[in-house]
Amino acid sequence: MLIAARSRKWPLRIIALGGMNEIGKNCYVIEYEDDMLVVDAGLAFPEEEMLGVDVVIPDFTYLKENRHRLRAVLLTHGHEDHVGGLPYLLREVQVPVYATGLTLGLVRHKLKEYGLELHPDSRVIDPGRWLEIGRFRVLPYLVTHSIPDSVGFGVETPVGTVVYTGDYKFDQTPVDGRPADYAALAELGRRGVLVMLGDSTNADRPGVTPSERSVGAAIAEVIARASGRVLVATFASNVHRIQQVIDASARYGRKVAVLGRSMEQTVQVAADLGYLRGAGGVLVRLEHMRDMPPERCTILTTGSQGEPLSALTRMSTGDHRRFQIEPGDTVVIAATPIPGNEKLVYRTINNLFRLGAQVVYGREAGVHASGHGSQEELKLMLNLLKPRFLVPVHGEYRHMILHRRLAVEMGIPEERVLIGGNGDVFGFDGERGEIISGVPSGTVLVDGLGVGDVGQVVLRDRQQLAQDGILIAVVGVRAGTAEIVSGPEIISRGFVYMREAEDLIEEVRRRAADAVASRAGEGDVNWTELKSAIRDALAGFLYEKTHRRPMIVPVVLEVEQPAVAAAERDG
Amino acid sequence: MLIAARSRKWPLRIIALGGMNEIGKNCYVIEYEDDMLVVDAGLAFPEEEMLGVDVVIPDFTYLKENRHRLRAVLLTHGHEDHVGGLPYLLREVQVPVYATGLTLGLVRHKLKEYGLELHPDSRVIDPGRWLEIGRFRVLPYLVTHSIPDSVGFGVETPVGTVVYTGDYKFDQTPVDGRPADYAALAELGRRGVLVMLGDSTNADRPGVTPSERSVGAAIAEVIARASGRVLVATFASNVHRIQQVIDASARYGRKVAVLGRSMEQTVQVAADLGYLRGAGGVLVRLEHMRDMPPERCTILTTGSQGEPLSALTRMSTGDHRRFQIEPGDTVVIAATPIPGNEKLVYRTINNLFRLGAQVVYGREAGVHASGHGSQEELKLMLNLLKPRFLVPVHGEYRHMILHRRLAVEMGIPEERVLIGGNGDVFGFDGERGEIISGVPSGTVLVDGLGVGDVGQVVLRDRQQLAQDGILIAVVGVRAGTAEIVSGPEIISRGFVYMREAEDLIEEVRRRAADAVASRAGEGDVNWTELKSAIRDALAGFLYEKTHRRPMIVPVVLEVEQPAVAAAERDG
Repeated sequence: MLIAARSRKWPLRIIALGGMNEIGKNCYVIEYEDDMLVVDAGLAFPEEEMLGVDVVIPDFTYLKENRHRLRAVLLTHGHEDHVGGLPYLLREVQVPVYATGLTLGLVRHKLKEYGLELHPDSRVIDPGRWLEIGRFRVLPYLVTHSIPDSVGFGVETPVGTVVYTGDYKFDQTPVDGRPADYAALAELGRRGVLVMLGDSTNADRPGVTPSERSVGAAIAEVIARASGRVLVATFASNVHRIQQVIDASARYGRKVAVLGRSMEQTVQVAADLGYLRGAGGVLVRLEHMRDMPPERCTILTTGSQGEPLSALTRMSTGDHRRFQIEPGDTVVIAATPIPGNEKLVYRTINNLFRLGAQVVYGREAGVHASGHGSQEELKLMLNLLKPRFLVPVHGEYRHMILHRRLAVEMGIPEERVLIGGNGDVFGFDGERGEIISGVPSGTVLVDGLGVGDVGQVVLRDRQQLAQDGILIAVVGVRAGTAEIVSGPEIISRGFVYMREAEDLIEEVRRRAADAVASRAGEGDVNWTELKSAIRDALAGFLYEKTHRRPMIVPVVLEVEQPAVAAAERDG
Repeated sequence: MLIAARSRKWPLRIIALGGMNEIGKNCYVIEYEDDMLVVDAGLAFPEEEMLGVDVVIPDFTYLKENRHRLRAVLLTHGHEDHVGGLPYLLREVQVPVYATGLTLGLVRHKLKEYGLELHPDSRVIDPGRWLEIGRFRVLPYLVTHSIPDSVGFGVETPVGTVVYTGDYKFDQTPVDGRPADYAALAELGRRGVLVMLGDSTNADRPGVTPSERSVGAAIAEVIARASGRVLVATFASNVHRIQQVIDASARYGRKVAVLGRSMEQTVQVAADLGYLRGAGGVLVRLEHMRDMPPERCTILTTGSQGEPLSALTRMSTGDHRRFQIEPGDTVVIAATPIPGNEKLVYRTINNLFRLGAQVVYGREAGVHASGHGSQEELKLMLNLLKPRFLVPVHGEYRHMILHRRLAVEMGIPEERVLIGGNGDVFGFDGERGEIISGVPSGTVLVDGLGVGDVGQVVLRDRQQLAQDGILIAVVGVRAGTAEIVSGPEIISRGFVYMREAEDLIEEVRRRAADAVASRAGEGDVNWTELKSAIRDALAGFLYEKTHRRPMIVPVVLEVEQPAVAAAERDG
């Protein structure tokens, strides 16, 4: 059975369905007796070897099988790695969603794209205000992060309090003037925290992450100096940064247009809900910029990760329908490439230079700051909450280990830092805690409309096809005897350029025919063996000639044909 | 004709066959009347979209067609992006190779792997000593770089001097005590430099690149502190770093073993030729370490870029035949990920942590320094050489543009900085210079034994196969009428998991059969149209059902079969 045995010994259980050993698809379950909460339901982007996969979501099997116990999904903030899996979860399970205003606004929008709606009991929560959910009392408290309205959760249970930090940094000069709720954190710490699930993303960075405000200052300087149009590419959801671009543009007499579907959506939602100040007089439609002098124009856009279909990427290759880069334009890449995206980002930058733009990018330019706290901030969090147990989450393995190292340096005994993986069940009583069992976990791949149907077999095939292509040998044989009546025809894709490899292909044809002929005869023909014989005959030959290993697919088509007819033909 | 017209107007011509708009496959041609020199013949590693490609080399067509004028190939240093294309060039053209001792030693080794030998007139050159080659007088001069024995070349021609800087930084405290030959550079500058081909790699980095010695100090500190074995992973060719690891190990009473084929080779060649000092008493075979206490063991190894087959990667997954990582080991990743390799590197680091190793990595650790000079060093080079023309090379487009920006800031008129691409012919008389024409260039892809046979068609197919796989529909039809006599059989790979998609595949079969049936008949059957009909019928259906676009390959096998036989069967 898939249901983890409820346990008298470990009345409080925490399960990570995602977010362990990865920065992505965060999804944590907190359960006490018959009550279960889910915090966050994110997605991840595919690893390089997951060819053709669109996104990756957690395995929600455990939630489906325990839906009767699931009281609510709580969301910390509106980033994809925390909310992107929600549509897939809500298709399976009807459950109310609790989140702050902006987060719920963005989620509502996203669900609409999937033809879904929020459960009617869903609601906007106020940071600082306790909630009662089943046996849990939950305190959402404000944190600072790269999207407004981010919170962490303190969850009181009968055996102790769990704090899930969510994503956070301690920005002492936040753009919206709303610093993290130190008082709430300190109060939780004073009352006693049994276990803290702590963001580990930047556990390998010493010091303190720069304030978002320093990014605003750097961008403002670019805007102040530029004599032409300024384009700022950043993450669509970074409303604080968008705010600062709007403010700086207003200060220097510029209007701002927004280009790129996801950013247009964020700006719309954020403006509607009151998370953007003073945008009314500054934002204009892109089309209105046609007649404005370039030094009055700022354009906010997507594509800071070099995403192939994004607005900036298309502009950089001259392929954008509505906007052309021109000499004199300044482009600010207000982002650091996420590992894996470097080449795409640099390609975009090269192309922008080619079109004559000035490009402001890179660490030294100061136009990006992480949304995650560095080591000194992780330490501050530990000092505020003073948890009995630390479960490092939201990090690759190295980040979780380095988070542990920080905690141990601060006096938490090593055995009270629990390093786990997705699917692990962490059991706690008021005093002890350990990994007690597991539930189904792992990654569910989404490709087009298919959720979970692409697995190892399909991926392995794609990898082989990508490396060396495919060679198909089709032969029609007489049913029963396997005498060749048509073919072999040889077709290849992604292996060699057929027109220039005629000799090779002809030799392949001959060898395939020989392989069939050597098996043909009067007795019962074993079709599986016949195909293997073709495959073996070709694989060795092709490797010898090319040092490539295309996938070889033999197709044997049986044709009912009386011997007389064949004789007639051959005659 | 492929031969660039020799020109009275532009007696001196320079052609980049590689190295423009890329950091890779450097290959430059300098020609004056009937004399031609090639400087470097490198390879590049494939871009992400070049699926299955092993390496990329320059198009040597121009050199083949002008082989009678080619006097020599000069090499600046032994890195793959400067010498890796040489075996492919020397297969086509017999020409002497001139290089410093270590470079020629490494090249000789590499050629052997390809079953090639150096031209008998090849020779070891001495930095600081002029060479006469045809109408050219060539001064190789010492520079500092991440491999010993690196040089640049001053090339005197009847109309002026060309300087190709090669790869360089100005390391003021080089490990081997041989700084760049400032006197030679200044003397070239004093006599007058017409055109400088200048390394642009780090043109976007302010300041000065740290000395290799600072890396040695950082690694020595790790070695001094570690209580267990220390593994240092770095580029196989970085002999200076290898030297420093050996020195530090000796200082702290450790022996050093080398693990990883390419590094073993470099150490062998470097030691044989006298480029490693004091290695004799320190280097031991890995097997001898079995009985040594861990605090006496240092292991030098490859895999600092997370290369899947490298020693470190295999160790990190527990798959190395000769070495197991154990808790207590310290691993130093003495390299920065090359863009595109980040995810592989981090995966390796995570796996090493999983095995209980301490891992020292990242910018803050100070265990890597670039081999290329930063902005202040590029400026110093320009001040030493005072070239009339600058041709930025060895950089992506943005680096070349930023190199130009530096030169212009220093007073070189913008029109005398020539930004070009691979294949461009830069013409010079004593005074003027411009891009005058082009020669065949572009990238030649090497895949297995094939050189240049993988082109756009094959790559596009591989890309489509990688994304959504392939679906093959095979049908046997009666020759002439196209009535179905067998099939359709549907086979897919990398598209859906066939066992779980039986209904879908059955529907595909039905639609393929319908498409054939609708075209079958008495008249002449157009086989191309028939295949198109199958493809069209399936593509739309599959996209609708899956939102995927597998490659669809219809195969129609004609079978000679008298109508009577079929009737018999059907009856």
